Amino acid sequence: MADSDTPLTRPHSGLLVDLYELTMGESYVAEEIAEREATFSLFFRTLPESWGYALAAGLEDALRYLEDLRFAEEELAYLERTGLFGATFLDRLRSFRFSGRVRAVPEGTAVFPNEPLLEVTAPLVEAQLVETMVLNEIHLQTLVASKAARSVEAAGGRLLVDFSLRRTHGGEAGSKVSRASYVAGFDSTSNVLAGRLYGIPIAGTMAHSYVESFPSELEAFRAFARSYPDNAILLVDTYDTLEGTRRAVTVARELAETGHRLRGVRLDSGDLVELSRGVRAILDEAGLEDALVFASGGLDEHEIADLLGAGAQIGGFGVGTKMGVSADAPFLDMAYKLVDLEGRPVLKLSAGKATLPGAKQVWRVRRDGVAAHDLLGLDDGHGDGEPLLREVMRDGRSVWSEPLTTIRERARRERESLPEAVRALDGAPYDVRVDPGLEGLRERLAAGAR
Amino acid sequence: MADSDTPLTRPHSGLLVDLYELTMGESYVAEEIAEREATFSLFFRTLPESWGYALAAGLEDALRYLEDLRFAEEELAYLERTGLFGATFLDRLRSFRFSGRVRAVPEGTAVFPNEPLLEVTAPLVEAQLVETMVLNEIHLQTLVASKAARSVEAAGGRLLVDFSLRRTHGGEAGSKVSRASYVAGFDSTSNVLAGRLYGIPIAGTMAHSYVESFPSELEAFRAFARSYPDNAILLVDTYDTLEGTRRAVTVARELAETGHRLRGVRLDSGDLVELSRGVRAILDEAGLEDALVFASGGLDEHEIADLLGAGAQIGGFGVGTKMGVSADAPFLDMAYKLVDLEGRPVLKLSAGKATLPGAKQVWRVRRDGVAAHDLLGLDDGHGDGEPLLREVMRDGRSVWSEPLTTIRERARRERESLPEAVRALDGAPYDVRVDPGLEGLRERLAAGAR
Repeated sequence: MADSDTPLTRPHSGLLVDLYELTMGESYVAEEIAEREATFSLFFRTLPESWGYALAAGLEDALRYLEDLRFAEEELAYLERTGLFGATFLDRLRSFRFSGRVRAVPEGTAVFPNEPLLEVTAPLVEAQLVETMVLNEIHLQTLVASKAARSVEAAGGRLLVDFSLRRTHGGEAGSKVSRASYVAGFDSTSNVLAGRLYGIPIAGTMAHSYVESFPSELEAFRAFARSYPDNAILLVDTYDTLEGTRRAVTVARELAETGHRLRGVRLDSGDLVELSRGVRAILDEAGLEDALVFASGGLDEHEIADLLGAGAQIGGFGVGTKMGVSADAPFLDMAYKLVDLEGRPVLKLSAGKATLPGAKQVWRVRRDGVAAHDLLGLDDGHGDGEPLLREVMRDGRSVWSEPLTTIRERARRERESLPEAVRALDGAPYDVRVDPGLEGLRERLAAGAR
Repeated sequence: MADSDTPLTRPHSGLLVDLYELTMGESYVAEEIAEREATFSLFFRTLPESWGYALAAGLEDALRYLEDLRFAEEELAYLERTGLFGATFLDRLRSFRFSGRVRAVPEGTAVFPNEPLLEVTAPLVEAQLVETMVLNEIHLQTLVASKAARSVEAAGGRLLVDFSLRRTHGGEAGSKVSRASYVAGFDSTSNVLAGRLYGIPIAGTMAHSYVESFPSELEAFRAFARSYPDNAILLVDTYDTLEGTRRAVTVARELAETGHRLRGVRLDSGDLVELSRGVRAILDEAGLEDALVFASGGLDEHEIADLLGAGAQIGGFGVGTKMGVSADAPFLDMAYKLVDLEGRPVLKLSAGKATLPGAKQVWRVRRDGVAAHDLLGLDDGHGDGEPLLREVMRDGRSVWSEPLTTIRERARRERESLPEAVRALDGAPYDVRVDPGLEGLRERLAAGAR
């Protein structure tokens, strides 16, 4: 059901870039070093507090960006009007096609601080220019997939629906949040476009405005059941949650008389522990044991864990804003750093931001199916375990494509193969070791840095 | 220089909507209440901790969404395949044009909890359908303009540049962040597309990768100065900040010999208080009193205030991720609620989320140029002070358009007309009064609610 010819997935404008990528490009061209082969490494330095791991995501969109990046004549005309660029560089942009190689960790893979999620090897001017949006694409979906995985962990198999679209940071973010949360294990999304673009199941209930648009709550419930006799989740908290639930039971009985059944009820406010128990009891007494008690309203993994820990009787959660903007950790400290120039490994020493030099590989060592440790080393030979970075683009053409279901299944396996302590909401650090060869190189370079 | 024909500003897909807007629409049409006139009110319930006010923004994009919203045949075909919709409703979508009226607070206006930023009056099916994206558009830019205004407050007139694009939640968010931060008083942005779309000045320096791409830091600085002899801000922290500054002085002297001058240096790591003082001293001793000391790296209003309070010698700030994702307050508790249906005011009573009924107006009462209090009342007559909501769309056509510079100037005046305590980073609450007529209506309706 996925369908990817809609506007959301068209390439971004070539101008969607930090100005300095272009002014550095002007200088690289002027100094005749623009075509030297450079490798940049994309990684995050730390995980948000209490996160034991992240799930890599966003690669498909990053590769599409690289394949589609072009500069239109009117964009070049704008750049010329800025007065910052000469004809030689603008001609380089006019014929711009990303021509490089990309190695990356497949989407859905668990990743840890300082491990490259992606490495770009290309002429310096190209590899530099793509920094802004490759970072942007990988950052957003990795952030959200990782945040959403925590709700999956907390919900313990209960239904999870992405409700975030109204407060994500733009509509583009909304659809990418739907994709990333589905990768992480969410069951469905309220975002209809994401349903069409990515083939994600779509779901929804009703708003308070719907209930208020009828002369009474009962009439509203009956009207909705007429349109959706097998698929109605009735919102019961507009006036009084327990009264609303009794009205839902009335409608469920009327549905049963015509061979249909009430799907469930939704709570969106109040003390969800107490109310869900009261609602569950009313439904059960009416013989509606299979009707879903669905909850929403300011939820993320913390509230889900607290609710379930306190004995809430909830079978499904609508998780919105706090997941969609990753509210308690709205960004990762993700960077894209030059690590090699024409075979010369490079590093920076900036306080607190020192980098590891050279193109790299990450080997994941598993014991009895459980990830034991990772080894972060140079991409120059063999380590033990499974190498995580694979070639995904060659000569500017993607050689990597996976169905979203494959990525989602990988994410599930990856989560399940992590040590329990790392998976937990209060996640423990995972053991990432730096190969002695890489560490030695770093020390030699640091000693000789200009 | 603004130029708005690029893809970013094309309308979102009609499918970018929460599913329930559509299933409710199916039912409204089936029940023959779809064309009843409804008014929805958009507001936020609370401000983030320590925020005294918000700046309204995003109206231009919300109006464009309303004007451009259409359903393409392939989108209708997708909806049909879901099995959730009948031919009558799909036909209603096929000819969909938003036909309603919108009243709104102009962008750049200071706004407070429970005050409508926007009210939509339209046939119920239309006013309901646009909920998701009208909220999304107003939410993002109001959030970011409000967050960015705090950096403007903290920086006390120093240069502020938006550096957020690489970690905003998507490229669309990146450009809207540039716009919103410019509205709030930022001077420029690194986002080149935002420069083209909105006519915002663009700015940038250089990356560590640039410095590392040359045999030495000095050679890198000389190369950049060759391309940008009057516009070079040299990044001095790649290896050692004070040594880097001395090399920048060398380049400044060489520039001076040919009649040019060094624009400044950038610090991006380390103890910015100590380093900025050391850097400033080196520059001043070399007679470069007018060279800018520019700082970046994890900054927002809190760090800016701390740095300046501790005596940092910094003349400009690059403010990135923490502003661009509004890191300590990444969402507002913003809602879009039905308040009137065919002249009948409505409300919901949900615990903690009760609404005020009826179409509204906000009157701002000023004394000696300072905002004294607001009065929130029904849109049925006259209050004292300046009415904030104005008609911006009639019969589905925008009747409102302002240059971005006008909005930015309004934001400046609005900030300056707030009481000092409300403007402060630790902002005090502002006095918003509910008109007795509105409060009485709410009480009568609550007593009679079904």
